[in-house]
Amino acid sequence: MKKMKLIVIGNGMAGIRTLEELLKLDPDLYDVTVFGSEPYPNYNRILLSPVLTGEQTIKDIILNDLGWYEANGIRLYLNCRVTQINRARKQVIADDGTVAQYDRLLIATGSNPFILPVPGNDLEGVITFRDIRDVDLMVDAATRLEHATVIGGGLLGLEAANGLASRGMKVSVVHLGPTLLDRQLDAAAAGMLQTSLEMRGLSFLMGRQTDAVLGNEQGRVTGLRFKDGSELDTDLVVMAVGIRPNTELAMQAGIYTDRGIVVNDTLQTYDPRIYAVGECVSHRGIAYGLVAPLFEQAKVAANHLAFHGIGRYSGSSTSTKLKVTGIDVFSAGDFNDDNDTEAITLADPVGGVYKKLVIRDNRLVGACLYGDTVDGAWYFRLIREAKPIAELREHLMFGEGALGDTGHAGEISVAGMPDSAEICGCNGVCKGTIVKAIREQGLFTVDEIKKQTKAASSCGSCTSLVEQLLISCIGGAADIKPKSEKPMCGCTEFTHGQVRKAIKEQHLISIPQALRFLEWRTVDGCASCRPALNYYITSTWPGEAKSDAQSLLVNERVHANIQKDGTYSVVPRMWGGVTSAAELRRIADVADKYHVPMVKVTGGQRIDLLGIKKEDLPKVWKDLDMPSGHAYGKTLRTVKTCVGKEFCRFGTQDSTGMGIALEKELVGMTSPHKVKLAVSGCPRNCAESGIKDIGIIAVDSGWELYVGGNGGIKTEVAQFFAKVQTHDDVLEHCGAFLQLYREEAFYLERTCHYLNRVGLDHAKSRVVDDAQNRAELYARLKFALSFEADPWAERIEKTPARREFEPLHV
Amino acid sequence: MKKMKLIVIGNGMAGIRTLEELLKLDPDLYDVTVFGSEPYPNYNRILLSPVLTGEQTIKDIILNDLGWYEANGIRLYLNCRVTQINRARKQVIADDGTVAQYDRLLIATGSNPFILPVPGNDLEGVITFRDIRDVDLMVDAATRLEHATVIGGGLLGLEAANGLASRGMKVSVVHLGPTLLDRQLDAAAAGMLQTSLEMRGLSFLMGRQTDAVLGNEQGRVTGLRFKDGSELDTDLVVMAVGIRPNTELAMQAGIYTDRGIVVNDTLQTYDPRIYAVGECVSHRGIAYGLVAPLFEQAKVAANHLAFHGIGRYSGSSTSTKLKVTGIDVFSAGDFNDDNDTEAITLADPVGGVYKKLVIRDNRLVGACLYGDTVDGAWYFRLIREAKPIAELREHLMFGEGALGDTGHAGEISVAGMPDSAEICGCNGVCKGTIVKAIREQGLFTVDEIKKQTKAASSCGSCTSLVEQLLISCIGGAADIKPKSEKPMCGCTEFTHGQVRKAIKEQHLISIPQALRFLEWRTVDGCASCRPALNYYITSTWPGEAKSDAQSLLVNERVHANIQKDGTYSVVPRMWGGVTSAAELRRIADVADKYHVPMVKVTGGQRIDLLGIKKEDLPKVWKDLDMPSGHAYGKTLRTVKTCVGKEFCRFGTQDSTGMGIALEKELVGMTSPHKVKLAVSGCPRNCAESGIKDIGIIAVDSGWELYVGGNGGIKTEVAQFFAKVQTHDDVLEHCGAFLQLYREEAFYLERTCHYLNRVGLDHAKSRVVDDAQNRAELYARLKFALSFEADPWAERIEKTPARREFEPLHV
Repeated sequence: MKKMKLIVIGNGMAGIRTLEELLKLDPDLYDVTVFGSEPYPNYNRILLSPVLTGEQTIKDIILNDLGWYEANGIRLYLNCRVTQINRARKQVIADDGTVAQYDRLLIATGSNPFILPVPGNDLEGVITFRDIRDVDLMVDAATRLEHATVIGGGLLGLEAANGLASRGMKVSVVHLGPTLLDRQLDAAAAGMLQTSLEMRGLSFLMGRQTDAVLGNEQGRVTGLRFKDGSELDTDLVVMAVGIRPNTELAMQAGIYTDRGIVVNDTLQTYDPRIYAVGECVSHRGIAYGLVAPLFEQAKVAANHLAFHGIGRYSGSSTSTKLKVTGIDVFSAGDFNDDNDTEAITLADPVGGVYKKLVIRDNRLVGACLYGDTVDGAWYFRLIREAKPIAELREHLMFGEGALGDTGHAGEISVAGMPDSAEICGCNGVCKGTIVKAIREQGLFTVDEIKKQTKAASSCGSCTSLVEQLLISCIGGAADIKPKSEKPMCGCTEFTHGQVRKAIKEQHLISIPQALRFLEWRTVDGCASCRPALNYYITSTWPGEAKSDAQSLLVNERVHANIQKDGTYSVVPRMWGGVTSAAELRRIADVADKYHVPMVKVTGGQRIDLLGIKKEDLPKVWKDLDMPSGHAYGKTLRTVKTCVGKEFCRFGTQDSTGMGIALEKELVGMTSPHKVKLAVSGCPRNCAESGIKDIGIIAVDSGWELYVGGNGGIKTEVAQFFAKVQTHDDVLEHCGAFLQLYREEAFYLERTCHYLNRVGLDHAKSRVVDDAQNRAELYARLKFALSFEADPWAERIEKTPARREFEPLHV
Repeated sequence: MKKMKLIVIGNGMAGIRTLEELLKLDPDLYDVTVFGSEPYPNYNRILLSPVLTGEQTIKDIILNDLGWYEANGIRLYLNCRVTQINRARKQVIADDGTVAQYDRLLIATGSNPFILPVPGNDLEGVITFRDIRDVDLMVDAATRLEHATVIGGGLLGLEAANGLASRGMKVSVVHLGPTLLDRQLDAAAAGMLQTSLEMRGLSFLMGRQTDAVLGNEQGRVTGLRFKDGSELDTDLVVMAVGIRPNTELAMQAGIYTDRGIVVNDTLQTYDPRIYAVGECVSHRGIAYGLVAPLFEQAKVAANHLAFHGIGRYSGSSTSTKLKVTGIDVFSAGDFNDDNDTEAITLADPVGGVYKKLVIRDNRLVGACLYGDTVDGAWYFRLIREAKPIAELREHLMFGEGALGDTGHAGEISVAGMPDSAEICGCNGVCKGTIVKAIREQGLFTVDEIKKQTKAASSCGSCTSLVEQLLISCIGGAADIKPKSEKPMCGCTEFTHGQVRKAIKEQHLISIPQALRFLEWRTVDGCASCRPALNYYITSTWPGEAKSDAQSLLVNERVHANIQKDGTYSVVPRMWGGVTSAAELRRIADVADKYHVPMVKVTGGQRIDLLGIKKEDLPKVWKDLDMPSGHAYGKTLRTVKTCVGKEFCRFGTQDSTGMGIALEKELVGMTSPHKVKLAVSGCPRNCAESGIKDIGIIAVDSGWELYVGGNGGIKTEVAQFFAKVQTHDDVLEHCGAFLQLYREEAFYLERTCHYLNRVGLDHAKSRVVDDAQNRAELYARLKFALSFEADPWAERIEKTPARREFEPLHV
């Protein structure tokens, strides 16, 4: 079958990203031709600023070299400008006479710098800052000329000014408005920025409107004249006063345009054969000039070009960052305060910090950060998630890291770290390695960084540091998406939430059913989606759906924890940590009989037998004659207790008894991730309830319940949830909270992450404030638990299950 | 022996507090006479505002009723004004003709409201707001008159205005300056305050200078005329434009005065027989108008009146609070920003929150809080401690509660809590009970609240809530002192720091020596100071000083943990949590042989035998044949470990081995409080290092050390301390940090509290940055540890020690 023809006009970031997405979806669908007006292969335009300063080279910022085009069979015309689209004939015609045929056309012509319509704007020495050629001109000018003037105090203008200054020129910035970066910063932050740029030697002429560019007889620029009559001598003028979507070609071809080429939510123009992406388009009235939205558009356009028909582009929240080394500016969303909004500001002028958060209708809608941009990624996520922030409000200003910092060396600002600083402790990856990968390989997402560098790919505690690095390298181009917006894995377009909803609404009770109904891209799913699907299905349909052994991780399958050398660790359950002489002796006997190399008491108040051979597991469990401790898998682990009022002088309640009751009730409970509880008998809190998924503290008049604590990767202090009176109240509240978590959390989300996503108030409203809903949740949990049996009791009795553990002798 | 005569002129808060302090020191020294010009016994003047609003009654605010004077043998003249002091004859003469003789005279005449020197200021209906009579006048006026005008928008003026409004009057406030509370708030906060008072119906005339009070023919006030010619009709005028020290009597007697009666640091006037305290005095040029400084003065004056000769008054930092229910305003220190200072501001106008922190020379010097005053007490402590705040700076605005809130039900604002809310979980004390005690019993310190209500007297986790309650009830009168400024206990005037210094400098190696040198007030010290002294002496002079058994708490004396029923719990040590079949069997045997009612695995990775009789302890230890776990007392407890790279798939280092090495090195180390360590083999942090005094996390390239975590009463997340490479580095850094803590922390200060006091940077500079100092600290620790032996090994061998455990048969 003959391939369809796809022509891409524009060899920039939006067009080529669309091709990359398309090649992932269907590499063989099209015969592809790309026209690029520049002489370079696709490069990372947003990194022109560091090239100008000399921090990077052109080579560093090439995203796809010529080999890539070749390897993917793409016909590439460089230095070749398309001059006409003939829609009737489905042809494009280029300035070198090339005529090419298309079935589908993708316009990605980007934008042009706006040139002020003043006399002299065409003099020699008047340039813009858009492409590699401009950078070459500026680098060259800096070697010969003395005084440069940048018109425009926006992001691009300031980056140009900083670059020229760092190349040794005396630089003035002329700005029409009263403050710099007026689209990104408010007056307070802009003032701090101006001061700090002035300290670097830049000078500013604010509130000046350029009336004319002055020149000499040789037709070379010599200065500027302003509306107020004043003049400024200069050898070079860089116009950085904005960009205009490049719509000329489309207009000529009769394609509907307003500010840009008008596209619908599938990025289709008014001609259904023609798509457009990037800075040249106008979507819902907005023309984006930042990379992140272009990438989102690319994904959707590729999807439709591949005839998948999935995906709508509904606009983007954007964030920007000033790429001037040593000056941290970040803004996101709509940070201009108006009558509908509420602003929270934090100002520390001497400390060099200014932050403004803008809230509308109980949602964060904008953020403007100067000096300390560490929480930019967090604010940006909050803006995109549009989560109610009432309960966060008091803490919002203090950032995501406020609650705990263990696990990433307590460093909170990556900008100031040396290249040799280790970011990922698990895999020993340094800052320099990550930054290099981001730059040289053109990475835009944490997932890409994980793949390329291994950073953040093990325990994940450094994820937020990696996000910060990404933002500090590429600013608004960083693609930071919350899990709730991401597809579950590469096998599907659907998010965790959508999959879960379908399982419930469609009564899907097996993985094959779910894969079929949800039109999975892969036949059997993958190692990432199968365990999640298995959990969603079995937790939604207890009793009906059967857990699929092939979808369980090895530990859950063999009900023991696999060790480095392939042996297993066995942890029998001790209810509430209480044991007996008889149990200790049985454990001792097992340790001797099976030559267990290490016996260790665990922090979860149990005893761990390490180094047991797989084939011994059933015998070990039989000899132990104790229930499984589930010290593996996504289930209830332990309920830690202190000795409570039965023994302790300080105990106010029987905490041990409460712990045992909870553990006996919840044993075997599967959940999105492991669940740990603790019960302390008084506020001295010897069971360390403050870092458990549910922590219970007995007080004189009842029990305080805390939720969402975590003692692991990132220490999270549990938050107060409810105060209840009776033993049964504790069981019901804990059970109902856990059932809510079981029903609503995404797979692998711990309670702290779940609560961070849905909000503590949500959980309180469903469990604490709504007695009927609480009772229903609790009843559903009890129903689900009624199907759980001890896995080892089962295995010891039934021969088939046991066979799995017998060694194969071949 | 005939008693000396002491006369107190003034029956107010300062004078009577001085008497109270004096009676505590030496109840029989003086024959005391008090002259009071009001008809009431000593009352709490700062609570006149709630009396005016009707929230409290006169009865509620009486501090010492007539019975108190009688019980203490004090001659009290009420309604009696002293008109003359005859210093030559050492007499005072009162307006009723009474003549009284003194050996020592205490002037506590307080202050007078300032009356504007304008025509009409003596008309009927022009009053002030100073005493009970003024309140009576206002309450009466509110029943008959309609429109009240308060001149002065300071604390007192606004409280008067609010009170009159709440009694139903239409109230205008006339203020000279452009903003309210200009001595307490900056313009931003003042604007928010004004808006919120306007919403309560108050109206404001700002920037108006009163020119005359207008009246009718009956000599009754009818209005005000201002400098700008405008007039205001009114039925009542309250002048609240400031106070003036009442120095008339002193001046008349020829005692040197400037603004007030001039006193030196012992509160002595220029006549050595005459002391003065309270609002009437001028100390180092400052006349205080708030209660807290007066109480500090009272303490010092009493000391000198009692001829103890200890104590100097060196001035006070002050804090104030507007006592208007529902409007939270708090300010402390010097919050007016100037050229020397740096201000950090947080503004959330819609949320009704404004905070300003003023920093000078890296110290917090002032705070102004509107809307959210929860952290007022913390800021006030920081101001008084004058601690460098560089490392806190980023978090300063966030408040003290930022790091964790477990243990006091997560509530952070007491103002909004209902009276029935439980503040102290240990003792079941509600907010209402505490507030009632503060008001009715005139409490000013947390210690007094502890004594009267039991709140905060057990685990102490609610201390900061109690401080907040104190501030919200009595504002600036709350006496909130950091431990470092308080005397060690009632036996001495010296602080922990002073005692420790003396022990070192004077080479004091026994408790009797120390008590003698430091002139202890009690013969043998008390249960509070003896253990502290014992720790300071033994830790300062290891090898030389011997631990005094009588100064140890019972657990430390018998080396086991006493339980509720008088039995003991025994926890043998398992190095790094690792045990063996043989140990488990021995434990099982002991459990059976001694009928141990409960065997429980602990969160510290050991096994606890509960319910052992005292007389069985030596035998149990002998049979166990394991070292003591020191699960009692102020020593190293456990070093928790995870299984590390020896077994775990994720482990990056041998964490178990490291834990064992640390535990073996540090075993037996005495310390100011218990010390817990943990070592995790990777950032997954299964040993929960984030809440330990020292938490260690292995990473691919070495070890990260965290310090100051706490999993108990208030969950505190450990802070990053250092990253080190080798096994020996870990031992040395941990040892040096612990030795620093041993040398510098006050007795019963956990590492988190110690670090909170001295600052993490201090510890880093001594241990991490200074290799020589680190080596010296480590060497001192090793020297001290060289004298430690296992306490049970000792007891089992030596008969005398063992005898203690044998029951007495009588």
